[in-house]
Amino acid sequence: MSIRDDVINMKKVAPVMAGSSIDIRNKALLLIKDSLKNNKDKIFEENKRDMDNATASGIDDAVLGRLKFDEGKLSSVLDGIDMLIGLEDPIGKVSLKRELDEDMTLTRISCPIGVIGIIFEARPDALVQISTLCVKSGNCAILKGGRETANTNRALFDIIHEAVVTAGLPDNSMKLATTHSEIDEMLNCEGYVDLIIPRGSNAFVQYIMNNTRIPVMGHADGICHIYVDEHADIDMALKIIKDAKLQYTAACNSVETILVHKSIADTFITRLKEYMIENKVCLHADDELADRYGLSHLPEKGYIEYLSPDASVKVVESLEEAVEHINTHGSHHTDSIITDCDSNAEYFMNMVDSAGVYRNCSTRFADGFRYGFGAEVGISTSKLHARGPVGLDGLVTYKYTLTGNGNIVADYAEGRRQFKYKELI
Amino acid sequence: MSIRDDVINMKKVAPVMAGSSIDIRNKALLLIKDSLKNNKDKIFEENKRDMDNATASGIDDAVLGRLKFDEGKLSSVLDGIDMLIGLEDPIGKVSLKRELDEDMTLTRISCPIGVIGIIFEARPDALVQISTLCVKSGNCAILKGGRETANTNRALFDIIHEAVVTAGLPDNSMKLATTHSEIDEMLNCEGYVDLIIPRGSNAFVQYIMNNTRIPVMGHADGICHIYVDEHADIDMALKIIKDAKLQYTAACNSVETILVHKSIADTFITRLKEYMIENKVCLHADDELADRYGLSHLPEKGYIEYLSPDASVKVVESLEEAVEHINTHGSHHTDSIITDCDSNAEYFMNMVDSAGVYRNCSTRFADGFRYGFGAEVGISTSKLHARGPVGLDGLVTYKYTLTGNGNIVADYAEGRRQFKYKELI
Repeated sequence: MSIRDDVINMKKVAPVMAGSSIDIRNKALLLIKDSLKNNKDKIFEENKRDMDNATASGIDDAVLGRLKFDEGKLSSVLDGIDMLIGLEDPIGKVSLKRELDEDMTLTRISCPIGVIGIIFEARPDALVQISTLCVKSGNCAILKGGRETANTNRALFDIIHEAVVTAGLPDNSMKLATTHSEIDEMLNCEGYVDLIIPRGSNAFVQYIMNNTRIPVMGHADGICHIYVDEHADIDMALKIIKDAKLQYTAACNSVETILVHKSIADTFITRLKEYMIENKVCLHADDELADRYGLSHLPEKGYIEYLSPDASVKVVESLEEAVEHINTHGSHHTDSIITDCDSNAEYFMNMVDSAGVYRNCSTRFADGFRYGFGAEVGISTSKLHARGPVGLDGLVTYKYTLTGNGNIVADYAEGRRQFKYKELI
Repeated sequence: MSIRDDVINMKKVAPVMAGSSIDIRNKALLLIKDSLKNNKDKIFEENKRDMDNATASGIDDAVLGRLKFDEGKLSSVLDGIDMLIGLEDPIGKVSLKRELDEDMTLTRISCPIGVIGIIFEARPDALVQISTLCVKSGNCAILKGGRETANTNRALFDIIHEAVVTAGLPDNSMKLATTHSEIDEMLNCEGYVDLIIPRGSNAFVQYIMNNTRIPVMGHADGICHIYVDEHADIDMALKIIKDAKLQYTAACNSVETILVHKSIADTFITRLKEYMIENKVCLHADDELADRYGLSHLPEKGYIEYLSPDASVKVVESLEEAVEHINTHGSHHTDSIITDCDSNAEYFMNMVDSAGVYRNCSTRFADGFRYGFGAEVGISTSKLHARGPVGLDGLVTYKYTLTGNGNIVADYAEGRRQFKYKELI
């Protein structure tokens, strides 16, 4: 069967999935958890095949760490499933209930999005998180993981799929895509796939966005800023910058540009430079600043996303200039101000147009787990629908139901009846 | 100045607009209301020029009615502004407040989308509704109305813009585009325009969707269904079908396809045919049904959006088949079941994948005013972000703020500190 046939079948069972009770969906999660535990030896064995292949092909250690699925990763996904089971049902939440007239009631009620295509990097734990989020939120999912963990993905998917069917959810509610060409097939399934969530490199996400008419939720760049205000605690600023740059350098929420208020620039940059040398981070600045403090020069493209132990530094004349720099050159992901001044913090948090605006903490907190969402399918820098880390809330939409008693618009348009508008919640 | 320059300037003042107080935004609405009243003669005069031009060019009466801006239309937009002033501030609503740790609090807070481009048909009242919705929701707006009311649009826009500036909102927060080529310019302003809302014909909305990488909110088709269940009150069904087809035939929420359960098909179609002949509606059906009841044949493309006094009729074997027909051939806009049976209604409303699912009332109720939203910028058949009639709720997004005390991720990742997760609301 082609991907197109698969998603046509999925679209048909999507309303069944949407109408399934929370008991069945939680039961599926429980069965997934048990089955992952019971079949861990098989999973680890398949993962060993993937790891051996990866090692043989010379993949570097940092990436190998992500491919690995061991007791630690298993235990952490099981914890995630437990957390997910404990969360309230995201479906069927009533956010508006209004009597339009005595015999006609309007209700806005949350429901799943439908069929979601998720393309993610070679991280077996991501497969478990994404598929369990989709089960809990009543969505059908077509999953395409990185090929480096193809064997682990297949083992995990088969276990999850079997548990889902055993719990009583539709067979066609979940599907694993295995070949790269299936991504392009999926991108052409407009009308059947309701949403595509790509995870991976900027270039990859851009490719997806440019090659489909299906809505895409994702983020294209992660150029995060830390602005060190004139009222900053310098020690705190240095500690936070180190964490935001080095705790996981390749993450989209790591800091790339450090903005410094001119009144503290001299003291701060001197200390920052020393501290960054200790921590093997290379600082870049415009020609004037680089020459003055002996820093590296900015790359040709300016204030870029490095994803490496590099960061840009810039001196700003004012808080206002810092905000303008962030809104103009940033990627609307996550930006932090370090300041002891409440009014400056308030201005920054109001005026910075990003999914996450922080005060006195590291940009690395932008993450579904850390926010307490149980898991995330990704981080969105789009402003519509879902912004920031996307958990269950981002996987549902709503519908309006209207229940009447033969009501017709002509009666209201021609003045024979009047709307009453009484709020019921 | 080009549209691009305009939206670059708009993007700069968008945070100022977002940070403006509800008092200033309501004051702007009040000033708009007063100024529209005080300048009505000038507006009517400009509208007369548009009407004269339209009459001279031979535009038909139905369209002329939409171009007209008279005492009645003025009074209805003034009522709309009053309703809008009375609605609570859509900005700054906190939907999540969670202590991640004793010294770190996460808040999810609603904020405007930013810069919205709205392209709408030649209806001067729409210009007032759309621009006042944007003011109330703190969004910057670039407005392009139909050219047939160019003079009225200019007069209305100038009044509204002056009131907005007098109230203290930024000069660049609102702009009128006047030439058709500016639409294409706007479509190329990715990164500056956050959302485009096109209103108009299907072909036009499709053109917009196919020619921009900016998110588009709109609806491409309005193929609405009424399903007459075996447990329907036939008189009620006929009354509702007449309203849904004829109360305003050219509307996207008018009914196009009538589905009938086979067990009542004979009785119902005979009565429907008679009733529709009385009301000058032409019924279309597949060859077999058309021949049996003497109806017209379906157009070549099948169950289409007529936007005229035509409707398709189809007999279904079951409720399930009705739902499948709607989900497969419909446009996910608004669909209604006529039934006295609660369980059939519940199944229909759960399983139909549309923005509006109705019981025993006319599809024509799918409208922001009738839902009590004060006004609407349009109706969305997209499933992401906003669905159905889009009022203030659909014009806001949210951001996450995180306030800490020097918190770094490494402390949590390496086990020195634990998240506490305490809900504060």
